[in-house]
Amino acid sequence: MHRIVVGLVVIGFALGVAGAQSPAPPPPLTEQQMAEAFDIYFDLCSGCHGPTRQGATGPELTYDTLGPKGEGFIRAVLYSGLPGGMPGWGSQGVLDDEEMALMAAYLLNPVPEPPLLSFEAIHDSWNLIRPVEERPTEPQTTRDWRNYFGVILRDAGQVAIVDGDTYELVALLDTGYAIHILRSSRDGRYYQAVGRDGKASLIDLWTEVPEVVAEARPCLDARSIESSKMDGYVNDYIIEGCYWPPHFVVMDGLTLEPLKLVSTVTYDRGRGERVDAARVAAIVASEHSPEWIVSIKEAGQTWIVDYSRLEAEGQPLGVTILDTELFLHDGGWVTGGRYFIVAANNEDKLVVIDTHDNSLEAVIDVHALPHPGRGANWVDPEHGPVWATGHLGSDHLTVVGVDPEGHPDTAWHVVRELETPYTGNLFVKTHEASPWLIADATMSIHPQGPSSLCAWRKDDLENSRTCWQVEGAAEQSARMVHIEFNADGSEFWVSAWAPMDKESFIVVYDSQTLEELHRIEDEWLVTPTGKFNVNNTANDVY
Amino acid sequence: MHRIVVGLVVIGFALGVAGAQSPAPPPPLTEQQMAEAFDIYFDLCSGCHGPTRQGATGPELTYDTLGPKGEGFIRAVLYSGLPGGMPGWGSQGVLDDEEMALMAAYLLNPVPEPPLLSFEAIHDSWNLIRPVEERPTEPQTTRDWRNYFGVILRDAGQVAIVDGDTYELVALLDTGYAIHILRSSRDGRYYQAVGRDGKASLIDLWTEVPEVVAEARPCLDARSIESSKMDGYVNDYIIEGCYWPPHFVVMDGLTLEPLKLVSTVTYDRGRGERVDAARVAAIVASEHSPEWIVSIKEAGQTWIVDYSRLEAEGQPLGVTILDTELFLHDGGWVTGGRYFIVAANNEDKLVVIDTHDNSLEAVIDVHALPHPGRGANWVDPEHGPVWATGHLGSDHLTVVGVDPEGHPDTAWHVVRELETPYTGNLFVKTHEASPWLIADATMSIHPQGPSSLCAWRKDDLENSRTCWQVEGAAEQSARMVHIEFNADGSEFWVSAWAPMDKESFIVVYDSQTLEELHRIEDEWLVTPTGKFNVNNTANDVY
Repeated sequence: MHRIVVGLVVIGFALGVAGAQSPAPPPPLTEQQMAEAFDIYFDLCSGCHGPTRQGATGPELTYDTLGPKGEGFIRAVLYSGLPGGMPGWGSQGVLDDEEMALMAAYLLNPVPEPPLLSFEAIHDSWNLIRPVEERPTEPQTTRDWRNYFGVILRDAGQVAIVDGDTYELVALLDTGYAIHILRSSRDGRYYQAVGRDGKASLIDLWTEVPEVVAEARPCLDARSIESSKMDGYVNDYIIEGCYWPPHFVVMDGLTLEPLKLVSTVTYDRGRGERVDAARVAAIVASEHSPEWIVSIKEAGQTWIVDYSRLEAEGQPLGVTILDTELFLHDGGWVTGGRYFIVAANNEDKLVVIDTHDNSLEAVIDVHALPHPGRGANWVDPEHGPVWATGHLGSDHLTVVGVDPEGHPDTAWHVVRELETPYTGNLFVKTHEASPWLIADATMSIHPQGPSSLCAWRKDDLENSRTCWQVEGAAEQSARMVHIEFNADGSEFWVSAWAPMDKESFIVVYDSQTLEELHRIEDEWLVTPTGKFNVNNTANDVY
Repeated sequence: MHRIVVGLVVIGFALGVAGAQSPAPPPPLTEQQMAEAFDIYFDLCSGCHGPTRQGATGPELTYDTLGPKGEGFIRAVLYSGLPGGMPGWGSQGVLDDEEMALMAAYLLNPVPEPPLLSFEAIHDSWNLIRPVEERPTEPQTTRDWRNYFGVILRDAGQVAIVDGDTYELVALLDTGYAIHILRSSRDGRYYQAVGRDGKASLIDLWTEVPEVVAEARPCLDARSIESSKMDGYVNDYIIEGCYWPPHFVVMDGLTLEPLKLVSTVTYDRGRGERVDAARVAAIVASEHSPEWIVSIKEAGQTWIVDYSRLEAEGQPLGVTILDTELFLHDGGWVTGGRYFIVAANNEDKLVVIDTHDNSLEAVIDVHALPHPGRGANWVDPEHGPVWATGHLGSDHLTVVGVDPEGHPDTAWHVVRELETPYTGNLFVKTHEASPWLIADATMSIHPQGPSSLCAWRKDDLENSRTCWQVEGAAEQSARMVHIEFNADGSEFWVSAWAPMDKESFIVVYDSQTLEELHRIEDEWLVTPTGKFNVNNTANDVY
């Protein structure tokens, strides 16, 4: 923290910001302005700067660090962004001038204490729209619901259900704001959606028109949701992990009724300072054990949560506290479901968890800011089973060996580094039915980066890179983001994510030839980001 | 809480306290006075009123609750105490007039934020006095060290090691302040002592003169310590639970080197408000599984902590979070080590934990403020195996059936209620070699109560009660407290706990006849409270 503060002061000095020696006092805000700014902060800023502005992926934002720079500097950064990840909220049209002025003033005011949520408040937020006994007992649609795509319409606060066979819109559902992820139940029937505003929505795909059957808001800020996927427990439970308050909640898997609330306040890797704003990042469910793997971001801990005994008296919940690395963000399973790999993006490392004995299997040094999403699994001709991640902060994809039994020499080592033309990758993806590994460059600051995609042939990774700019994307200021295959792997879909006032679309590619097959374009398609195919999400195919 | 606050307001009104309508502003204190008062508060008050003065066993102590009563009222209560448990610190000579005035002013000032402790600070407190390789490999004493008694000399901040065969003082060891409990390692060789000031001391009994071989201070306020007692893990680990900060620490069992720090911030019974000052009360170790049973007091949760995998990569620690009742305080094993019974003293209940499947076995309604210590186990002629507790708030001992296999009808039901002449019992104890069940009345407000003991024949509980005032105790203002048997159960010892300026002693009784056999009296015997026989403590005989 100290290092960051010093760095910011130096920047302020170098830019010759007025008032660097005697910061102006924070401009006063009305209660209503504070409330409005608080909401904007939670929607746009707290993800990187932390709910208490203490800093995390982004720097600390307090009067101590920002006061010397002054309001004008803050507004300039809010408008233009900064290299390293800060988006230009003004230039992207997300915040207008008045909102930027408000936020600049807000950030110079003392940090308000973000509220906690009691179990009662969470229970009050629970809304069972369609009880289980009123739901169909078999699919009511003739569509192939296992090939549905749930498409996040980020700024619309909606999820579109799209037929993967016909590209038709099947349903447009209101959900939480800026859904971060959709997960599928193991049987594929239900999507669980979680908004950045903490709202969870349970979507039933078996009705003729898919519908939201239950909602709850266990968090004020959230990124992760997952269901119980072990045989015998399918659809019994759903967990939602919060960015704020620092806790996770276990809910009934068919109704979202809140059942148990668990604080994530903990100590930095079990041997450091207490982390009061310990946020829950990626959560995945094991299919081999009745457990969720829960990433406690700022604490550098992986909590392995056993839900199998919640029905016993006293609703016992098991938590195995593993000390790993900072800051755990996102990750996915190695094919087979024994090893979970998660990025520690403050330390440029990958952390490998062995879920057979719930221990830390390995830590792998990689390039700056690994961001795997779920990563990508395939069998490399030379190194056997491998898994890959891209990087937000480096123009590389990193490929690591993941087969300690068959390839012990290369297991948990970097076996290939594939150069990309752009930094700013968010997602990599492949499918065993496709010869290609695909990557986006969504967060690139290169003019052609965000509108481009790259692909590598998995059987000739070193010599086969092909990159292309997606036609029409740049014209709409659209960023290509998030690759998802259809159920049989014959196609992959990529979102062209344009600002609200421009036209977004989804491009469907042939997974063999990389030829464009189709474009989904319609007025309902507002700010599409992640897309989740039922079959691939339910079965953790990536 | 609400109930208690209302009660105080009524008392204030009844006493006609001036200023009840417009409280005087808090009197200012210097930084040095605040620091002195803070220390006194942590030593004397926080045990019952909580580290943040939020109330627990005792009521909330804030300007809101105390302001309307005024400084004079607070000083009067500090001097004289109150029925229900508040000690008369002035009348007992613990606080002088100046200190009572200071504390009255302190309690009217805003509650200062008690500090947290980082792992680094805890590690810095660690002092390895004698490394393992410099310790004897076999006992260096010809005494029967398995019949030693560790005697807490409360206000001296010392532990006396007394030879149970000869009544001689073997060693006088400096420890933390006001040791709350001694535990014995499973092999009996080591005592673990924990002070109310949070300091842990590891005492080796194998040297010719027992000595403190390691110290650490993982808490600022603590009540519980325990070692790993499962076969294969004996002396591997020690856990200390804190009253403040809200956490527990796992240390090396032979050196006290801190290994892992775990926050106890959690939600009230998994379904309520967040409890930021969740204190760790009783901890016991299972001999059948590699687990500690940890009572999270204000949260009404029992955490079952599995230490068996701490040496794996990432030092995984398992915690099973069980929701039970408020406020968990003290308790003990049912003979056999499967069931642990703990008092929930805010709800006048006993909570039974089944450690075979780590679930809540039963909840039993009992009289006001059960305070079992470890409780007492024996076989009742009518009801089979039973376990008993006394009560701080009722003139009863409660006997419950504890044999669900052999006596399913009475298991976890109250089978007998034995009337006592006094309320204010702290400890009950028996031994299979003795026909008697013994109880003290340490906290009684009856003139004869604290200097008296009572006994019941276990084969004729309803008709055999015999009580006696201990000769010489009242003259020294001594309270008889804590019964402990020697290794073969032929004697039991009870402390006569006098104020610092009077003469304390220990009475040794014949466990068959209740005749006094011996009195331990010497100038080193200052404020003796608990006594822990090595054999009985190591093997959980009670």
